[in-house]
Amino acid sequence: MTRVTWTDVAPRDGLQNITDTVATEAKVRLVRGLLDAGAPRVEATAFVSPKWVPQLADASDVLRSVEAHDLVRVRALIPNLRGLELALEHGVRNVLLTIGATESFNRRNVNRSIAESLDDLERIVRLASASQCQVDVALSVCFGCPFEGHVAPERVLRLCRELVLRGTAEIGLSDTIGVATPAAVDELCSIVMEVVPPQQLSLHVHDTRGLGVVNVVAAYECGITHFDGSVGGVGGCPFAPRSTGNVCSEDALQALISLGARVDTDLQALCAVAEGLARDLGRELPGRLYRAGVWTGSPAAAEEARVG
Amino acid sequence: MTRVTWTDVAPRDGLQNITDTVATEAKVRLVRGLLDAGAPRVEATAFVSPKWVPQLADASDVLRSVEAHDLVRVRALIPNLRGLELALEHGVRNVLLTIGATESFNRRNVNRSIAESLDDLERIVRLASASQCQVDVALSVCFGCPFEGHVAPERVLRLCRELVLRGTAEIGLSDTIGVATPAAVDELCSIVMEVVPPQQLSLHVHDTRGLGVVNVVAAYECGITHFDGSVGGVGGCPFAPRSTGNVCSEDALQALISLGARVDTDLQALCAVAEGLARDLGRELPGRLYRAGVWTGSPAAAEEARVG
Repeated sequence: MTRVTWTDVAPRDGLQNITDTVATEAKVRLVRGLLDAGAPRVEATAFVSPKWVPQLADASDVLRSVEAHDLVRVRALIPNLRGLELALEHGVRNVLLTIGATESFNRRNVNRSIAESLDDLERIVRLASASQCQVDVALSVCFGCPFEGHVAPERVLRLCRELVLRGTAEIGLSDTIGVATPAAVDELCSIVMEVVPPQQLSLHVHDTRGLGVVNVVAAYECGITHFDGSVGGVGGCPFAPRSTGNVCSEDALQALISLGARVDTDLQALCAVAEGLARDLGRELPGRLYRAGVWTGSPAAAEEARVG
Repeated sequence: MTRVTWTDVAPRDGLQNITDTVATEAKVRLVRGLLDAGAPRVEATAFVSPKWVPQLADASDVLRSVEAHDLVRVRALIPNLRGLELALEHGVRNVLLTIGATESFNRRNVNRSIAESLDDLERIVRLASASQCQVDVALSVCFGCPFEGHVAPERVLRLCRELVLRGTAEIGLSDTIGVATPAAVDELCSIVMEVVPPQQLSLHVHDTRGLGVVNVVAAYECGITHFDGSVGGVGGCPFAPRSTGNVCSEDALQALISLGARVDTDLQALCAVAEGLARDLGRELPGRLYRAGVWTGSPAAAEEARVG
């Protein structure tokens, strides 16, 4: 039985794209709900400048609400050394730095060359290690870049080598703009796994083109066991109808469970968290399972029967 | 290269669940759009009593709009001999009869025992054969039944034998209530394929729990090459937020194409049909690809870049 480590990024990647302000209490409820549902890891917030991402300005409040014994399951996004310092002050033991797989994307996203970002990474890993904090890297646009188009797996592989050399604990192969296909996932994972062991890799996909779940399954069948996703599939901007969120955690997890994966998160509890989040945001989320309900196979499960 | 035969059921399974009336011209546009996009088969309408399904009362008008040389790519749902007679009068050469995999479902759906439905099938095949018309059967609730719960694959297998004995051309293994998982699809297809060759099987799934695309891929990897789906993922009842449509044709087809499948339908054209249908229905459809656009891998493809 393969154990899957699923990181729920809804509080960070999910909510940062929601332009209307989400109340801090709603975020606290979300983080607590995910931890209580047994999520092995929750990307709770980011220590970024409130000028860039005002939605995450309450990082301190959110983190302070996490009980001390649960901090070990929390990850926070940091853009730089200053972010790391703040994360460490809050007792965070796992941070995530974003680096683009292409120069154009990295430049637009963090205003640095990839070489500069790698230098930053070195400094961040040095300080983090001294505090027993694990540094992961989200490698953006691994499958396609809005500015450079298709990204060759060999390019991603070269960057992965650099990341490992600099002490990255886990590399998140990220399909930032949602263009991955099962075949592309299979190809990239196979190539990267020749150099980086699967336990140091994770897959981070968006459901922009409806292939989120099938891409997770493709990576799982390749030997990848770490994944990111967001409860309810939350994400994207509600005012930009064509943007979409991360792959929905509970939708994808039910597929992995059906394939024999051992999953720590409780599906029913996760669906309840999605329901609560939908209520707090005042809108339906993209996820399907929380709306339809977990199928138990029992005839008691009331379902609307329709001509098939 | 495996050739995939994709039947678009949007005009029938998709629209029959939309309770507000869809204008006949919109249906005609939809059927014509799908045929023009190269769809190998379109389930254009049903010859059912308008008392049961008033949304499909314009079956005659819709079929009359199909050019004679395209009729060979049209399938119509029929509930009984009378429906077959009407379909034949309109020159239809492929009809679909629905039979439930469980007694309770068949009883509630068509008010007959399975044995009675099998007798009907025999009579229907006899008349259809005399007119060179192919009879397919949609075997409902193959993965789970709202009244009986989990359905054992052996039960489905026994029924498939009966259907083949009675001259069924193609059996649609239908996940009517959307409870199939990749593992269940793999199991059922493998078992049924021991007795029925894959070219006589198809998979018909709904995206109720977000596993539509991954289930299609699971069946494809098992050797299934015939599928049903609906453009834009249209279906479900807009007034019942928890109901959902068929797996989205273009979302699923892009996954199959990435895996090397040969697909006759043009993806861009299919997305345009989804756009048009969304306009005609005055609402966003569940499908993702038509909203995000087909990824060409070219940097010119303008995309919203986001922190991944």
